Amino acid sequence: MTITLAIEGSGFTSQSRDEVRYFERALFLIDEHGMIQSVLQSDDEQYDAEKTQAQERGIYQAIAEGSYLLPGFIDLHVHAPQWAQDGTGLDEPLEVWLGKYTFPTESKFSDETYAHMVYGDLVSRMLSTGTTTASYYATVDRQGSLVLAQEANRLGQRALVGKVVMDDKEANPDYYRDASAQAAVRETERFINEVAELNEHSAQGIYPVITPRFIPSCSDEALRGLGELAARYQDYAYIQTHCSESDWEHGYAYERYGRSDTQMLREFGLFTERSILAHSVYPSEEDMRVFAETGAIAVHCPLSNAFFAGAVAPIRRFMDAGMHVALGSDISGGYNPDLYGAIRQAVTSSRMLETGVNRDAPAGERGVANSALTLNNAFYLATAGGGESLGLPIGRLEAGYAWDAQVVDAKYPSARLPIFGEAEPASDIFQKIVNLVVPENIRTVWVQGREVVNK
Amino acid sequence: MTITLAIEGSGFTSQSRDEVRYFERALFLIDEHGMIQSVLQSDDEQYDAEKTQAQERGIYQAIAEGSYLLPGFIDLHVHAPQWAQDGTGLDEPLEVWLGKYTFPTESKFSDETYAHMVYGDLVSRMLSTGTTTASYYATVDRQGSLVLAQEANRLGQRALVGKVVMDDKEANPDYYRDASAQAAVRETERFINEVAELNEHSAQGIYPVITPRFIPSCSDEALRGLGELAARYQDYAYIQTHCSESDWEHGYAYERYGRSDTQMLREFGLFTERSILAHSVYPSEEDMRVFAETGAIAVHCPLSNAFFAGAVAPIRRFMDAGMHVALGSDISGGYNPDLYGAIRQAVTSSRMLETGVNRDAPAGERGVANSALTLNNAFYLATAGGGESLGLPIGRLEAGYAWDAQVVDAKYPSARLPIFGEAEPASDIFQKIVNLVVPENIRTVWVQGREVVNK
Ligand SMILES: [Zn+2]
Ligand SMILES: [Zn+2]
Repeated sequence: MTITLAIEGSGFTSQSRDEVRYFERALFLIDEHGMIQSVLQSDDEQYDAEKTQAQERGIYQAIAEGSYLLPGFIDLHVHAPQWAQDGTGLDEPLEVWLGKYTFPTESKFSDETYAHMVYGDLVSRMLSTGTTTASYYATVDRQGSLVLAQEANRLGQRALVGKVVMDDKEANPDYYRDASAQAAVRETERFINEVAELNEHSAQGIYPVITPRFIPSCSDEALRGLGELAARYQDYAYIQTHCSESDWEHGYAYERYGRSDTQMLREFGLFTERSILAHSVYPSEEDMRVFAETGAIAVHCPLSNAFFAGAVAPIRRFMDAGMHVALGSDISGGYNPDLYGAIRQAVTSSRMLETGVNRDAPAGERGVANSALTLNNAFYLATAGGGESLGLPIGRLEAGYAWDAQVVDAKYPSARLPIFGEAEPASDIFQKIVNLVVPENIRTVWVQGREVVNK
Repeated sequence: MTITLAIEGSGFTSQSRDEVRYFERALFLIDEHGMIQSVLQSDDEQYDAEKTQAQERGIYQAIAEGSYLLPGFIDLHVHAPQWAQDGTGLDEPLEVWLGKYTFPTESKFSDETYAHMVYGDLVSRMLSTGTTTASYYATVDRQGSLVLAQEANRLGQRALVGKVVMDDKEANPDYYRDASAQAAVRETERFINEVAELNEHSAQGIYPVITPRFIPSCSDEALRGLGELAARYQDYAYIQTHCSESDWEHGYAYERYGRSDTQMLREFGLFTERSILAHSVYPSEEDMRVFAETGAIAVHCPLSNAFFAGAVAPIRRFMDAGMHVALGSDISGGYNPDLYGAIRQAVTSSRMLETGVNRDAPAGERGVANSALTLNNAFYLATAGGGESLGLPIGRLEAGYAWDAQVVDAKYPSARLPIFGEAEPASDIFQKIVNLVVPENIRTVWVQGREVVNK
């Protein structure tokens, strides 16, 4: 291994679910594959020698005083085409929102020129706010979906990309669905292979994702076929779908099958350690055991849930049950493309679950005890937790992990954080960063050792 | 009246609680006092003549295509000194947060150099994110509090500023309280007069506010004395305090007086049409009638409430009861200094109140029907609603109102809103702006006709 980049700086990385570790002027030595080979502290024997050598070789960069390194963020639920309608229609109920806004928007992405424009814009925006890995729903159209994979690859973001399957003729509009179950499976397989090919030339990783929109929009035949693909391509394809998002969706599988969507997805072969289950607000105790046993990922999308889920996912309970949990923006059910927003809303929503919301109920009966997430918990979900869930070496600034990182300038003139000259404890600075950073504060972003943002 | 500024541009202003009006290339004619004298539409007879005349006089400015005018925002609950600790300590319970973070922080502001630094930074930050009017708690120290009034005046923000009263010897730490009830009242009166003097040289208005921290930190003698000041200075002083913020606070007045804090504040002469009541989460039906009758203002602080109130204030019910409602950031109980954040969280929290949060309760019994606020409702609270509540001609881009306005550039390169070339309805553009703007998008801000931000 050759060291090709050496970064010296202070910053923060998750130590555990509950603890964040501060490091001061650590020296990160990064190899030609973008992996952190070692991290030296200033009192390490080799520190000075390695630093000098890196300086002589012209591969040394120092992060300025007042700027901080954080791991890049991992956003595991994004409907990329919905970026074109982001922020709109949220005063409407879900069925209106889907029929009037979402499906017409998504159907436009068979136009590849349009797809390049919108997808390129979204990926750039996410990178510039520190999201270095994302799991995307594209659209039903295979070629339009491939454009998203290409854009993420070109711009340097690590991406998991799915061509959406929605083949049920009753459940979906004629102008926007798969032609048939067989066509849906065939196009998905072709998409998997095309993305795998693209990935051969990708430094950071572009992964295909088998993506049934959710059970209600798919025929059994399509779900079975996709499950077979999941088995065949288990070495590099992921799986994503919506799971138990709302009372309606959670109840739907019981009506159709007499069992939960979690149970049925497992039966179809779609619930494995490579499954990314958006929302997962309502899994039963039994379903939660299936999550924990399989290692499937519950993706918490707190902003979207306030609009469409009808409850707050009990994330602390999920974590205590041994489930993998990660964070998602759910663009555009959640409008904020910036994962700082998801971290903050995860904490806020968890506090509201803990205390309850209805002032007319007695204080003791209003909420659900032991629901509150700390800021450290939510930061973990957006970084190390997401990485562990995916089984990828990302989300931590530690040896053996990819150099996916962001630099936050706390002194950036137009968005200076309120740090007024005194020696503040690192834990306070961390909290100010995570609660107060705006996009202007994020100055540099790397993915797999490649600098992808430099403002 | 002389027209000294003419602005041509498109944008949005509240028409009513529920409706936002779009205007296209309207011409705003603003006089030497910073008031909008008239607004001409492009099909008005005098439009061309006025525009030409303004151009010839060198007082004409056009807002570019893709940029939009909005009224400046009105933030009616801000603890200015807490900016120094903003974003920290929120994992702690309220009593720890106050004792370990807040009181030590506030006590530093008797150092005027420190006060100038922090207050100047906060006012600049708020102006640069579009907040043109704010109601501030300063600290117990009168002279430090005057520094805040001076900074707001110097930087051009319309401000309501209060020296905090907290005189109870049991309830407050020795190092941070008024020396006695008499001293508290005397210092408050002196502060009122000093601010009134400052206001004589202020274009935009700097108003003194009688500010008992909240009933639990004040003696009856101090409350009575402040009530007498409120009567004596009713022509230009406002009143602010915390009202029914949490179960504990709402219960406290019942324990001490056998009546609610709303009722007791009225008895002390502190509950009038000039009263700004932060939080007001728990007022009873009877208390709500007192609000409606007096015209006092309930200030909704949705982010802070998620941390410290234990419930969501039922704002739709308050509005239906005829109460004045406005928005507040509640820095630093709420960490976001940007009122776009308060607007968004008001909608989000109201949706969570509507649906409920506890997935284990039956869907029909989980929430409180008819609680949801639309984005238009929340925007109204931050603009026209705040202005009406204060009885000041602010919060609307209409003739007879002050020219308090912000320009949002939807095409600003590093924070371009997702508008992709098609002819989008103005209502969608409005929603994208309010949900997605980041500080970079806000390029120009005026208060009372004076340009106070130009990035
Ligand atoms: Zn989704
Ligand atoms: Zn407060």
